[in-house]
Amino acid sequence: MHILIIGAAGMLGRKITAAILAEPTIGGRTVTALSLVDLMAPQAPDWPAGRVSAKAADLGGSAAPAELIEDRPDVIIHLAAVVSADAELHFDKGYRVNVDGTRALLEAVRHAGDAYHPRLVFASSLAVFGPPFPNRIPDDFAPAPRTSYGTQKVIAELLINDYSRKGMIDGVSLRLPTISIRPGKPNAAASGFFSGIIREPLIGQPAALPVPDTTRHWHASPRSAAGFFLHAAGMDTASLGHRRALNMPGLSATVAEQIEALRAVAGQSAIDLIRPAPDPLVADIVGGWGGDYEASRARALGFTTEGSFEDIIRVHIEDELGGALPAPAAH
Amino acid sequence: MHILIIGAAGMLGRKITAAILAEPTIGGRTVTALSLVDLMAPQAPDWPAGRVSAKAADLGGSAAPAELIEDRPDVIIHLAAVVSADAELHFDKGYRVNVDGTRALLEAVRHAGDAYHPRLVFASSLAVFGPPFPNRIPDDFAPAPRTSYGTQKVIAELLINDYSRKGMIDGVSLRLPTISIRPGKPNAAASGFFSGIIREPLIGQPAALPVPDTTRHWHASPRSAAGFFLHAAGMDTASLGHRRALNMPGLSATVAEQIEALRAVAGQSAIDLIRPAPDPLVADIVGGWGGDYEASRARALGFTTEGSFEDIIRVHIEDELGGALPAPAAH
Repeated sequence: MHILIIGAAGMLGRKITAAILAEPTIGGRTVTALSLVDLMAPQAPDWPAGRVSAKAADLGGSAAPAELIEDRPDVIIHLAAVVSADAELHFDKGYRVNVDGTRALLEAVRHAGDAYHPRLVFASSLAVFGPPFPNRIPDDFAPAPRTSYGTQKVIAELLINDYSRKGMIDGVSLRLPTISIRPGKPNAAASGFFSGIIREPLIGQPAALPVPDTTRHWHASPRSAAGFFLHAAGMDTASLGHRRALNMPGLSATVAEQIEALRAVAGQSAIDLIRPAPDPLVADIVGGWGGDYEASRARALGFTTEGSFEDIIRVHIEDELGGALPAPAAH
Repeated sequence: MHILIIGAAGMLGRKITAAILAEPTIGGRTVTALSLVDLMAPQAPDWPAGRVSAKAADLGGSAAPAELIEDRPDVIIHLAAVVSADAELHFDKGYRVNVDGTRALLEAVRHAGDAYHPRLVFASSLAVFGPPFPNRIPDDFAPAPRTSYGTQKVIAELLINDYSRKGMIDGVSLRLPTISIRPGKPNAAASGFFSGIIREPLIGQPAALPVPDTTRHWHASPRSAAGFFLHAAGMDTASLGHRRALNMPGLSATVAEQIEALRAVAGQSAIDLIRPAPDPLVADIVGGWGGDYEASRARALGFTTEGSFEDIIRVHIEDELGGALPAPAAH
C-alpha cells in the first residue's frame, strides 16, 4: 500500500509519518511506500521496511498535482493549507492554495485514467462553523464560516463530496479540533495559549492566559489527530453516504478544567507559572469558536480520542518529554 | 439607479425585467437604467422612462465580467446558470459557469476600484439541501447537495458570504422554490409536471402525472419569484449578518392539494385531463427534494408569496392567460 502525504513537513504531517513508520498497517493492509511532499522537501526518514520518497511541490502550482499522483498512491492524505490568520490576511493566496490547489488535485485524480479512484483524507477544520452556537454543537449543524479559511475549507469539502458522489475519488473530510498540546515554541496563533498554559509550565516556564478561565474549548492531542487520519485512510466509506465531512471527536474543557488537570499532573508549582494577562482581542476571536461538539457520527465510525484533559497532558509528556517531567530546577 | 441583469433572457429574467418596467422603483429609488445580458443578447424592451441596453456575454468567458460592470451598476441580479440536469451531465461546464463564472464576477467587482461595492442578488436554489429531511425544514438546516448543481450553488453562496464579509460586495443569495406555474411548453425537467398538471388542463390539454398524489412540494409563482429579487435588491442587508443565503418562502402543497385547487378554479373537466402515468425514475428524483420549509427568516425580512395553491393558479391566469380561462372547445 502506498501513502502520499501532502503537507508532510508540518506538525501533523510529521506525526502521521511517525505513526505509519511505527505501525505500517492501515485497514489491514501493509504500507510499503510513503511519499512525503511539502513546499520544501520534507526530511525522508530512514525506513528499512519500505520505500520513502520526499519532494518539494506547491499544490497551488500548475503541474504539481498530476506529478504527485504519477505513482498512483492508494491513499492521499491532504494536509496542505494556508492557515487561518494567513488566509485572512492574504485573500488570493488562501483561495489559490486552499480552494484551487484542492480542486487541481481532484482534477488530476479525475483525469489520471486507469480507473484510479484513491482514498483521499482531507484536513478540514471546525472553523467551518460560526456563531451563534448551541451549547453542544450537533453533527448536522450548518457550516457558516466567519473567516476566509473556514469558507475555503467548506468549499473543499463540497468539492470532495461531489467528486466522491460521481465516483471520481473516495474522499473523507475530517473537521479537526484544536490540537492540544501543540509541541514546540509558543506561536502567534490566537489559539496558541490553550497549549501554552500547559506546555510552558510543564517545563518550568511562565505562560500568559489572555482569556477568562470560564472559556470552553474543544481539544484533541496530536497523537489522536494522527490517529484520525490513519483511521480514515482505512475505514469503510460506504456508510458515509453523501455526507463525507465528519466532525472529529475531542475533549471539551474550560480553561479552569485545563488548569485543574495540570495541577493533578504537575502540582501547584506548575499552576503558579500561569499569569493572567487579559487580551480582549484574543478573547473576542476565541469567543467566536465552538467549545463542545457531539461528534457522535465520527465516534460511531470508530474515531477515538482522549477522555480527559489529564490524558491529553499525559500524551504530551509521553510523546514530547520522554515520558517524565523534567526535574524542578533548584532555587 | 442602474440595474444589471445577468441571465436576462430566461423566464425569470424576463419576469424581473417586466416588473421593473411596470414599477421602476427599488428600495425607494427610481430605476433609470437597465442592462440586460445573456448568452445571446436579450430583446431590449421599449422603455421611454429610462435607458435599456442589451448585450451578449458568457459569464464563463474570460473578459466578460469586467466589461459587464464597466458602467458600475448599483444592483447586479445574477441569474446566469447551467441548470440542474445539464450540470449533472456536463461536469466541467457546470463548474465553469456556476462556480468560476460567479467567482470571476466577484473578482471583477473586487478589482473595479472606485470603492465600488454593489448589491448582488444571486439566484441560488433549495437544491443546496439533500435528504434525509425533517417534515418541515428549518432555516438553519445544513446544505448537503445531491447534485453538482446544488454543490455549485452552495459554493457560490459561500463565496458571496466571504466577499460580503470582507466588504468587497453587498451580496444576498436567494434559495428559490420550484417556480409554479412555469409558463410555456412542457419541458423535460423532472419537476416539469408540477406545472404541467395545472397549466395544460387550464387550456384544455391533457397532462401526465408521474408521481403519487401524496407527493409534497414547495412552490412560488413566477410573479413572487420576480418579487423576491426586487425586494432583495432594495432591502437593508445589515440585519443579515454573516448569513446572506436565505430560504425563500413558498407554498407547501401535495399533488392532491394542487389538483383540488385546480378543481376549485377550473372545475372537474380540467381535473379529468390529468392522466396518472407512474414514472419510478421521476418519483425517485422528486423524492429527494424537500416539500416544506419554514422560511421564517425571509418572511421576517419582508419576502412574501402566495397563501394558497388557488392563488398560484389565479396568478397564472392573470399573467399568462389574459385574466380568464379560454372558453371550452365545442365537442
